[in-house]
Amino acid sequence: MKVHDLPTPALVIDADVLEANLATMATALPGRRLRPHVKAHKCTALARVQVRHGHPAFTCATPREVLGMAAAGLGDDLLLANEVLDPGRLAALAAVDARVTVAVDSPATVAAAAAAGLREVLVDVNVGLPRCGCPVDDAGRLADLARSSGLEVRGLMGYEGHLMVVEDRDERLRRLVGVTGALAAAHDAVGGEVVSTGGTGTYDLHEVATEIQAGSYALMDTAYARLGLPFALALSVWATVVSVAPRWAVADCGLKSLGMDHGNPSVDGAAVWFCSDEHVTFAPDPDGPLAGVRAGDRVRVWPAHVDPTMAMHERVHVVDGEDVVDTWPVDLRGW
Amino acid sequence: MKVHDLPTPALVIDADVLEANLATMATALPGRRLRPHVKAHKCTALARVQVRHGHPAFTCATPREVLGMAAAGLGDDLLLANEVLDPGRLAALAAVDARVTVAVDSPATVAAAAAAGLREVLVDVNVGLPRCGCPVDDAGRLADLARSSGLEVRGLMGYEGHLMVVEDRDERLRRLVGVTGALAAAHDAVGGEVVSTGGTGTYDLHEVATEIQAGSYALMDTAYARLGLPFALALSVWATVVSVAPRWAVADCGLKSLGMDHGNPSVDGAAVWFCSDEHVTFAPDPDGPLAGVRAGDRVRVWPAHVDPTMAMHERVHVVDGEDVVDTWPVDLRGW
Repeated sequence: MKVHDLPTPALVIDADVLEANLATMATALPGRRLRPHVKAHKCTALARVQVRHGHPAFTCATPREVLGMAAAGLGDDLLLANEVLDPGRLAALAAVDARVTVAVDSPATVAAAAAAGLREVLVDVNVGLPRCGCPVDDAGRLADLARSSGLEVRGLMGYEGHLMVVEDRDERLRRLVGVTGALAAAHDAVGGEVVSTGGTGTYDLHEVATEIQAGSYALMDTAYARLGLPFALALSVWATVVSVAPRWAVADCGLKSLGMDHGNPSVDGAAVWFCSDEHVTFAPDPDGPLAGVRAGDRVRVWPAHVDPTMAMHERVHVVDGEDVVDTWPVDLRGW
Repeated sequence: MKVHDLPTPALVIDADVLEANLATMATALPGRRLRPHVKAHKCTALARVQVRHGHPAFTCATPREVLGMAAAGLGDDLLLANEVLDPGRLAALAAVDARVTVAVDSPATVAAAAAAGLREVLVDVNVGLPRCGCPVDDAGRLADLARSSGLEVRGLMGYEGHLMVVEDRDERLRRLVGVTGALAAAHDAVGGEVVSTGGTGTYDLHEVATEIQAGSYALMDTAYARLGLPFALALSVWATVVSVAPRWAVADCGLKSLGMDHGNPSVDGAAVWFCSDEHVTFAPDPDGPLAGVRAGDRVRVWPAHVDPTMAMHERVHVVDGEDVVDTWPVDLRGW
């Protein structure tokens, strides 16, 4: 199968770029220094490649991601970096044949984890993003409560999502000072061996972290590409041009096949005007490679946000040059 | 099963509101005057309810929607209101046990339809939205080409998506004058019995249409709700509050369970700050119903765009009051 023969919209990974991204990260953060986040790809086949690059421990965002990773034999050390209160789902996590650690940020989440029979937790600390995580000042008390509830507290986590796509590296570094201070103070109060934090935008900037939760580095997207990181775009959606007008053309890749929360996708050699459910309308540059584009031609569409894009597709094709060398199910979708 | 027992995020249809929306539309546009668009819900079970309301003909956006409708026995009259050039997919459409009509807007799409053995087409005319559709001036020539290629030309279609969410009704009406003129001129040139157009925002404004392609009216969303139409919000995502801070709270419904291209969702009694992959962060109104919200509580999240929201979920639950009375697979997802 050649890439041009794939039915479109076709989610495609460039094998060489993926390999280079994984190798670069494995050099920077070898082994357990990286805990790759599977929410960025939702694909156990890709996680298996990350294991081959030396990372046996993973971060998950949903119970289904944890259960799917465990079922795939990738349960060496799975962190659910999220608060869950559903007793049935927590019981399923406790029963699975894998090492499962969950985040807790309140007495309610501690009680739910203990009641479900989970064994290990991280205290989730708020480091500036208005989302989950207890205040740093409460972290020690929460760790004590967890321990007195029979839970092993492995340490803490905190996610600075608000800094992840700050484009200037120095600005990211400057604003990370407060995050680092919060993590250090919380670590003093909580104890344990783990300080889990960070993402693709800050993977090489953390001072007190024992592990980084980056996920997007593997496939990347146009939002992260603006940060000047040593990772390249590995993920695109191939589309077929279905209609051509004098000033624009339309391809069959729309907002149902693209994460849109970071804005429009990009098309090389064209200005993207807008996306509809199943279409992207773009204006080819007059002197660019798409100037003479015709119905039936293929174009590559670069997503602005990798995580939700992956979650919209049933499968992803791995391409080496023109050859489709593998097709992986995106098997961790849903909840 | 009660709605509060559903694992979250849970996509939920209010049965009474759906019924009222369908009844209102069936009164305004009975029978074949409406050709409901299944892209808005991607659910054959819901389409079956639309059939019970008197609408046997449907509009589809993808080959898979057509094939899925046919497989569900809903193939009385299926319009693929989109251009497709993939020979394999077109052949599958030609082979299916259903009446299938496809849109064509170029010699290439006419040739592809004829080569695949399809029998019936509509000429897709551009009426102002920069997307698919041939210029009005080319419509007659294209119809002639289709007929000389052995295709039956049932008439034409044109979609004025650029007017669909213009909030002021008079402004929509005013701007529809040009659309109506284009449709009428194209109809003169193309012939045939069908003038298929329109959507939820313009369902009662068209003068020359023989049928309207509305879809969103059944479930609605917060973007359409601003238009003052006689259809109410039937679709919400139920979420569980997983973390509470003094100024905000977080529930487990994020941008992977919500179409985000029309912006943030809404939460009654709160200001939505932002969505992450699996979270919505919102600030409860100090005097509102969520002021004392606690971890474990349920909140309803109202999507801004119904079509992509439906496409992100495997199933949708139908709720009557507190009772879950049905669960429907969202079985027309993907391509």
